[in-house]
Amino acid sequence: VGKVEKSGRRSLSMQSKYRVSGFLFSGVSAGIKTDGKKDLGLIFSETPARIAGLFTKNAIKAAPVLLGMERLKYGLCQAILVNSGNANACTGAEGMRDAIRTSSSLSKHLHIEEKLVFPSSTGVIGVPLPVDKLEKAFTPLVKNLFPNGWEDTVEAIMTTDTFQKMEWATCRVSGKKVKLCGMAKGAGMIRPDMATVLSFLVTDADIKTPLLQRLLNRSVEDSFNRITVDGEMSTNDTVLLLANGRAGGSVWTGHGVEVFSDMLSEVCLGLAKNILRDGEGATKLIEIAVRGATSREEARIAAYAIAHSPLVKTSFFGENANWGRIFSALGHSGIRLHPERIDLQFDQVTIVKNGRRLDEATERKASRVMKKKSFKVIVDLHEGGNEFSVFTTDLSIDYVKINASYLS
Amino acid sequence: VGKVEKSGRRSLSMQSKYRVSGFLFSGVSAGIKTDGKKDLGLIFSETPARIAGLFTKNAIKAAPVLLGMERLKYGLCQAILVNSGNANACTGAEGMRDAIRTSSSLSKHLHIEEKLVFPSSTGVIGVPLPVDKLEKAFTPLVKNLFPNGWEDTVEAIMTTDTFQKMEWATCRVSGKKVKLCGMAKGAGMIRPDMATVLSFLVTDADIKTPLLQRLLNRSVEDSFNRITVDGEMSTNDTVLLLANGRAGGSVWTGHGVEVFSDMLSEVCLGLAKNILRDGEGATKLIEIAVRGATSREEARIAAYAIAHSPLVKTSFFGENANWGRIFSALGHSGIRLHPERIDLQFDQVTIVKNGRRLDEATERKASRVMKKKSFKVIVDLHEGGNEFSVFTTDLSIDYVKINASYLS
Repeated sequence: VGKVEKSGRRSLSMQSKYRVSGFLFSGVSAGIKTDGKKDLGLIFSETPARIAGLFTKNAIKAAPVLLGMERLKYGLCQAILVNSGNANACTGAEGMRDAIRTSSSLSKHLHIEEKLVFPSSTGVIGVPLPVDKLEKAFTPLVKNLFPNGWEDTVEAIMTTDTFQKMEWATCRVSGKKVKLCGMAKGAGMIRPDMATVLSFLVTDADIKTPLLQRLLNRSVEDSFNRITVDGEMSTNDTVLLLANGRAGGSVWTGHGVEVFSDMLSEVCLGLAKNILRDGEGATKLIEIAVRGATSREEARIAAYAIAHSPLVKTSFFGENANWGRIFSALGHSGIRLHPERIDLQFDQVTIVKNGRRLDEATERKASRVMKKKSFKVIVDLHEGGNEFSVFTTDLSIDYVKINASYLS
Repeated sequence: VGKVEKSGRRSLSMQSKYRVSGFLFSGVSAGIKTDGKKDLGLIFSETPARIAGLFTKNAIKAAPVLLGMERLKYGLCQAILVNSGNANACTGAEGMRDAIRTSSSLSKHLHIEEKLVFPSSTGVIGVPLPVDKLEKAFTPLVKNLFPNGWEDTVEAIMTTDTFQKMEWATCRVSGKKVKLCGMAKGAGMIRPDMATVLSFLVTDADIKTPLLQRLLNRSVEDSFNRITVDGEMSTNDTVLLLANGRAGGSVWTGHGVEVFSDMLSEVCLGLAKNILRDGEGATKLIEIAVRGATSREEARIAAYAIAHSPLVKTSFFGENANWGRIFSALGHSGIRLHPERIDLQFDQVTIVKNGRRLDEATERKASRVMKKKSFKVIVDLHEGGNEFSVFTTDLSIDYVKINASYLS
């Protein structure tokens, strides 16, 4: 039994905060990015670690995603090789050959089995991976592996991210202290063509693979799968969680599992929210909570209908409490509803009651809520007892500028 | 048997172009709009006309839509009363009472049965309809009914439309000349909160109601239902077609039906394209054609996935031939596909063949195509023999500006 002790970006020095016993990190510039920034990262486990993973559901999957899905079956991983600047997507059979070749080549440098290497890529799609550049960088990449090399790896996976995204937490399970660190790259879509989400998490917990996968599924469902900038899903989205067991054998049942699971969800949600905050042109982080739905699925559909509506998102940017747009999105979503039952709140301010707006004074109050960097929109359908919430951003002028102007 | 003789905005004088025997038109300012512009329109048929209609599929329907759906069952109409500046949506039981009261009151002015009046509204939602203002304007509205009052009605239905949208055409069916005129208001979303589409069509053709409805369904399916600015559907969308039979009894079978149907589709598509051209901030009109799908439904899903993708739409605005975004939208759409089979064309320029990009020179050529005001994106999935195409716009900085700034 235990509890989450600390999390987030606290006062511990970087060196100890993002250290997890038995893991080494590195990041170098291989010349894939033309601006000389770091573009090749490596996460290395001194011993084979158990691995859980989740990949994009996009029907068009990048070669490293397809290879990762295959290797996940072994349940073990010792190295995550990640490059930015090239997605190795829509590259056909050559793309798969390149992904295999780089992981094979790296495994020789590391003296480990090839199948224990998981390659991951983000960047421009349709362009062959510059394998030679990667291979030339393997020597310095391996030489620079350090327990406190975390930030170098984070830097290497960044594309248009404007800040580094990392979270850490510890908890106690059956008397053992367990550590978890996670990094992510986010919704920067200028170079990589789309909102590729990459996230890598490492822990010293001693958890069997099937449970590890179940806990990751649950945490991703409640974090990365609840954020949306523009409803796009990339060819390269990947979340990997490594557990090397250094914290020692614990009884992974009951409360201990819950404590670890909560910690994992907290770290994933922290990373996911930071991805949103760094969403292209985003000026606000908004939670859309739909309650009182006939099913959880209907609540989910309704929440995403609101979160994806360009009209709703531009009204968030304009800080106008335009509830008519929210109602229209709900009506368009296809869920069961009675307009005359619907209540709508912006944080604590009820703006619509039983499908009717209250008054202009209330709308002004709601507009004041919208001036905040972060607020919550609550829809109560009064149809049933199910709810779902998602996190989203506003749609700003900068979103269009950023996404229209690259490559020109 | 016959053929479509003329259509569109040609050199005939307004007076004769938009005259259809037996129909009168009017438009006045009732003071619903605060800027004194025309906001109340009337289309009057000297004798009860057969009517076909289509209404929004949004689950939240404005009161006049609900009333119109009810009255459509009679199959006859003699007056369409339309106001802008107030949508009479999300106004509950009072909204329905107001819609009934205005149509009842107008029917007395016109000395016709109440059920022959179809009210229609567009504008701000959630605000009670100012019935007194409408009723005060009925006397001048009826007094100003003229066979060539067409433009006054068009003006009265405009909200943020920057130009008047009207089309006309004639055809010959079994030796009789048949005329069709249509007006529409479009995707101006500043005031009305959403992309309310209103379109009213009048013809002197002598067509029985069930056939009229079938032909309208088909034409709307191929026009208004194929345009998308931002995937939103308003609470007030309405298309009404009146046929007064003045052209005389014809044999409405076989080829004659096809000729009239083609004319109707042509007029509807013309109106629909003008709505898109006037879409908020739109700088381009783009046709997305998906071919080689396993079913028409899959082609439709794929076409809309591309047309609704904010990343694809911003790349249209930026004039970048970013085929990766199109592929990602396809992959995300959930349809059956094999990336390695997909071909992609911008007008005549093939940019991707068998899932692989050709070269940079081709991409530059494709970018030149994108500089046009209007172009076609053709996706061939090579999975089957079905196709579907939709028309859309780019997503511009002005779209965000327009939709973020109103009410502020």
